[in-house]
Amino acid sequence: MKSSVQVAILGGSGYTAVELIKILLRHPHATIAAITSRQEPGKPVSGEHPSLIGRCDLPMEQFDPDAMKAKGIDCAFGCLPHGLSAEVIAPLLDRGIRVVDLSADYRLNDPAVYTEWYGTPHHDTANLKHAVYGLPELNAERIKSAKLVANPGCYPQTGILGLAPLVAEKLIDLNTVIIDSKSGVSGGGRTPKLAFHFPECNESLSAYNVGKHRHTPEIEQALSLVAGVPVSVIFTPHLIPMDRGIFSTIYATPTKPVSEAELMALYRRYYAGKPFVRVRDTLPATKDTAHTNFLDVCVKVVKGRIVVLACEDNLVRGASGVAVQNFNLMFGFDETAALL
Amino acid sequence: MKSSVQVAILGGSGYTAVELIKILLRHPHATIAAITSRQEPGKPVSGEHPSLIGRCDLPMEQFDPDAMKAKGIDCAFGCLPHGLSAEVIAPLLDRGIRVVDLSADYRLNDPAVYTEWYGTPHHDTANLKHAVYGLPELNAERIKSAKLVANPGCYPQTGILGLAPLVAEKLIDLNTVIIDSKSGVSGGGRTPKLAFHFPECNESLSAYNVGKHRHTPEIEQALSLVAGVPVSVIFTPHLIPMDRGIFSTIYATPTKPVSEAELMALYRRYYAGKPFVRVRDTLPATKDTAHTNFLDVCVKVVKGRIVVLACEDNLVRGASGVAVQNFNLMFGFDETAALL
Amino acid sequence: MKSSVQVAILGGSGYTAVELIKILLRHPHATIAAITSRQEPGKPVSGEHPSLIGRCDLPMEQFDPDAMKAKGIDCAFGCLPHGLSAEVIAPLLDRGIRVVDLSADYRLNDPAVYTEWYGTPHHDTANLKHAVYGLPELNAERIKSAKLVANPGCYPQTGILGLAPLVAEKLIDLNTVIIDSKSGVSGGGRTPKLAFHFPECNESLSAYNVGKHRHTPEIEQALSLVAGVPVSVIFTPHLIPMDRGIFSTIYATPTKPVSEAELMALYRRYYAGKPFVRVRDTLPATKDTAHTNFLDVCVKVVKGRIVVLACEDNLVRGASGVAVQNFNLMFGFDETAALL
Amino acid sequence: MKSSVQVAILGGSGYTAVELIKILLRHPHATIAAITSRQEPGKPVSGEHPSLIGRCDLPMEQFDPDAMKAKGIDCAFGCLPHGLSAEVIAPLLDRGIRVVDLSADYRLNDPAVYTEWYGTPHHDTANLKHAVYGLPELNAERIKSAKLVANPGCYPQTGILGLAPLVAEKLIDLNTVIIDSKSGVSGGGRTPKLAFHFPECNESLSAYNVGKHRHTPEIEQALSLVAGVPVSVIFTPHLIPMDRGIFSTIYATPTKPVSEAELMALYRRYYAGKPFVRVRDTLPATKDTAHTNFLDVCVKVVKGRIVVLACEDNLVRGASGVAVQNFNLMFGFDETAALL
Repeated sequence: MKSSVQVAILGGSGYTAVELIKILLRHPHATIAAITSRQEPGKPVSGEHPSLIGRCDLPMEQFDPDAMKAKGIDCAFGCLPHGLSAEVIAPLLDRGIRVVDLSADYRLNDPAVYTEWYGTPHHDTANLKHAVYGLPELNAERIKSAKLVANPGCYPQTGILGLAPLVAEKLIDLNTVIIDSKSGVSGGGRTPKLAFHFPECNESLSAYNVGKHRHTPEIEQALSLVAGVPVSVIFTPHLIPMDRGIFSTIYATPTKPVSEAELMALYRRYYAGKPFVRVRDTLPATKDTAHTNFLDVCVKVVKGRIVVLACEDNLVRGASGVAVQNFNLMFGFDETAALL
Repeated sequence: MKSSVQVAILGGSGYTAVELIKILLRHPHATIAAITSRQEPGKPVSGEHPSLIGRCDLPMEQFDPDAMKAKGIDCAFGCLPHGLSAEVIAPLLDRGIRVVDLSADYRLNDPAVYTEWYGTPHHDTANLKHAVYGLPELNAERIKSAKLVANPGCYPQTGILGLAPLVAEKLIDLNTVIIDSKSGVSGGGRTPKLAFHFPECNESLSAYNVGKHRHTPEIEQALSLVAGVPVSVIFTPHLIPMDRGIFSTIYATPTKPVSEAELMALYRRYYAGKPFVRVRDTLPATKDTAHTNFLDVCVKVVKGRIVVLACEDNLVRGASGVAVQNFNLMFGFDETAALL
Repeated sequence: MKSSVQVAILGGSGYTAVELIKILLRHPHATIAAITSRQEPGKPVSGEHPSLIGRCDLPMEQFDPDAMKAKGIDCAFGCLPHGLSAEVIAPLLDRGIRVVDLSADYRLNDPAVYTEWYGTPHHDTANLKHAVYGLPELNAERIKSAKLVANPGCYPQTGILGLAPLVAEKLIDLNTVIIDSKSGVSGGGRTPKLAFHFPECNESLSAYNVGKHRHTPEIEQALSLVAGVPVSVIFTPHLIPMDRGIFSTIYATPTKPVSEAELMALYRRYYAGKPFVRVRDTLPATKDTAHTNFLDVCVKVVKGRIVVLACEDNLVRGASGVAVQNFNLMFGFDETAALL
Repeated sequence: MKSSVQVAILGGSGYTAVELIKILLRHPHATIAAITSRQEPGKPVSGEHPSLIGRCDLPMEQFDPDAMKAKGIDCAFGCLPHGLSAEVIAPLLDRGIRVVDLSADYRLNDPAVYTEWYGTPHHDTANLKHAVYGLPELNAERIKSAKLVANPGCYPQTGILGLAPLVAEKLIDLNTVIIDSKSGVSGGGRTPKLAFHFPECNESLSAYNVGKHRHTPEIEQALSLVAGVPVSVIFTPHLIPMDRGIFSTIYATPTKPVSEAELMALYRRYYAGKPFVRVRDTLPATKDTAHTNFLDVCVKVVKGRIVVLACEDNLVRGASGVAVQNFNLMFGFDETAALL
């Protein structure tokens, strides 16, 4: 274990980057050595994100894999939009730099599924084969030795971790799953758009991409692996007038009668020893998880149907926090380093 | 038809009262003649609600049915909490004053169901028998001649009107209905509570009363009447950090394959001539309905399942607006008077 | 007085346009006959603003002054950005169509001042000469006969009406005025920008354009007219995480000792008979004025200094509502038509 | 220096307590050994604040100074309302336990001023004499050896630190200071009240306690110490619809002409070496300081008047963060421990 790992952040202008920087600044074994920006090389990252003034004033630089190698970068975090990630990650892997990619580019194992949902061929199928899906509660062993970790999506984590115990125990009819998800606006990224213009989305609530959201195949792939058979879900995302937080209300029909007590016991067993999943007796609220890496979950039985309530902070647990959790596993640090 | 109907508002301190006053001030055929308050008789209603300063400065008064009769009150709107409504409405009906009650007291036909969900015996079963459920799109004829209209709940309207066409056409399996509802905080009333304290509910989202919300039997009763057989629903309410607006995402399994186009056509037929239901091709947002009496609805088919999206302003359409719509029907005015 | 005035709205895509449409739909003597759009001619205005579905579905059209004349348009409301307004208004005035312009183009009498603050020469100095500043409480008589009314800015109305009684009575030192103003985000318009991106401005507060905001000379011009001598103010705008509302806290040093009671009496006298200025004993809140044309004001004396608190809804009173108030004056209708 | 200081938190139910716990959980040299609660002894603090589940589940206990002494408590943080603090702090000091009190009880040196503003006699004038005002940027040396630190108020820190360089350099007329402050709602505490009820204060902005806020004498006392002569300020607080953040816009008349560049240089000199004051070239926003102990400040000159813009997170810098900063100084730790 090196005393301090040199890390790079690819794409410093978005919300996942700034969140990641704040977490890494608290990390006892990581040093931020480079931050890239296509649009504004030379600009201090704190010029783009004033919250970083005096905390991280590194100038952002053009992406240059050789320079990164020369600097001794051990690990890069990809904070670029999907499509762009695949282009910069291969050269880094070629130079022996391990990568945690926060984009969607390496999450779907099957390039055909990627093309179907993202409307473009996959540009790096060679590395896709070796990418490890970075959900630590399900995949810790493979993450430890991975060269490339595909950091999971924000919505999918609530759906997957909310359902995994039921699926693993074959307690639900796999064709009945409905995931009704609600997200704060930062999930939409930092590029101004009418949908995220304050006077449009404040004091309003809407569903979007009904039946068409790209996180659907990611959820299905992960749950299918747990189930050993294909799982199909209905996933409906909604936009909520708040900065942060994802809340998923998940409905499934059990294959046999179960009680709430049995389900809660199952969830506690399943997540025993997992420091960031909190199985709760009380109904969770996104605020309980705000600015943390916790995913809170509670299970109810209503009229014989199972209702799972799962929530998280979409930028920490849903992106940058779990990325550091993955990093900790990859480099042999305490899984919770910088995250409590 | 009288040129101006004298109306009273029972309980002036809450949000439904102030919203009702604002609507009635615009009504060409209604005059607010009395506003009651148990706690602060003598105080001008604009002292309680500063938005009314200079618009309605009537002093609130103790409830006195004889004085109301003497004043020539033709119609009273009940804006009291459930339980209290039943106590004041009987004396008004006895004196020939018609009532639109915004509480839950007269919505459930069966007093046993009321007791089961509200935990107390019903105090006015005599009038309960004659109460008419005030959902104008389903019940206009009975409302016209009613002495006592039970104004519908805020959540139920989205559930009932969102599902009525499907239920009426027997297109869905009646045991598969899930109503995932999201409400702004004003739906919780005006009494300060920790759950509605700004720093608790702002920037947060939570579910509450999962499987136990009192609007469940109201939805089931109304849909069962449409179906002709009992309907059971799973209803999950959520608290959203916004003042106003209810959005319901409704899931149901069709009894046979249907297309979105067929469903949209059905909804348009079903609500033809109903001025306040807007069947939309685009996904609705609560903001589109804010401060109006419109209920917007859109239907989708996702993986063979039907997904209905319905929203409204919880204080106007969900309470005071539909109350005036009922009033308009009862007194022979244009259904839209004061509401456009 | 014509029974119904045919009106056009120039520029249908912004917030002032949609607010204006909603107000005019309630107007007993106005008919919306045309709405223009440079970017999306042919699109129904309700396609741009879904809240208008079923209420106003007029297709937006290219600006064509002859077609407007042929249609019998009597009055046009300019809802275009400054700079653009000046280009379309001259041809309308030439054809005898009266105009209420909501942009800043005709507010500053002196083209040199316009150039200084807007960084561009004025394009229509001919009409500028005849433009009437549309603040009805100060200028009603001139507005009645005006061909071209320059609708006042949102911030300036709180500053001008908040200070006018003090200035008129020569009660304050004209070099001591500080106007600390706070505005909801809709004041920034409907074009997406990072500053108005929900996750940037929600849960945040900042000052902007300190000492440089273009509403400064408008406030000074209007107060100087009241004073008869030049008035200079320090004006600091702030962005507040709410949709609507402007609140100005105004500080001034009195020229002689005055009591709160005297000042309140003065304000009540000064605004007697003005239906939309509410002089209040209690501290106002923007919410009290939300969605109304009221401007609420209260005066305090703190350690010998005068503190005026004035607030309004920036889209109604601050723009579209006062535009209709001006329209009512111009066409001889009740000043409050469509506005209560 | 002990390797870990045992700390107690007096009053665990409020926002300052939960914020303090989160900061202390990250502190390398502090252990939370006791949390008291008058109302709910025995309840885990995470039952009161679900965000603490799994992080701090200590049961809250009745206040017992002897038990605290026996437990080896070295330092107590008072998170009680003013008036109550004075009652519990004396017994702790008597037992040699050092105290950082977050209430207002020990901030005002003169008991007569306390009585004037708080309407009650001071209950612990003996200890008041020795209390040290805990603003580290002005008072670090005295804080280091203090037995009792009066943690500063949230508003005052922006006012005092915003003005201190100007006052110290005698650059402003001390009778011209206006502090126009804006605060998020958490500043009002956790007890539900109508003013803080979500549907009342969301989408609204108001001033309150104009000329009467209790932080006024605290600001004046601190600035008078800097000035060496009495300073009088006009302080106007406003309630803003956001959880956190205080922004103060401060106006003062210079005693001689000064440039922005000179003032910025002065501020940079004055705060050189102070890790938590960020003198910025750009206008600050409260969000830049959210969840941090930073106070951001920028100075402008407008028409010859000085305008200072200062902001902070009211719960961290404004209360619990600065309390830990004080604790760090008192116990010889790095001033920034647990705060970056």
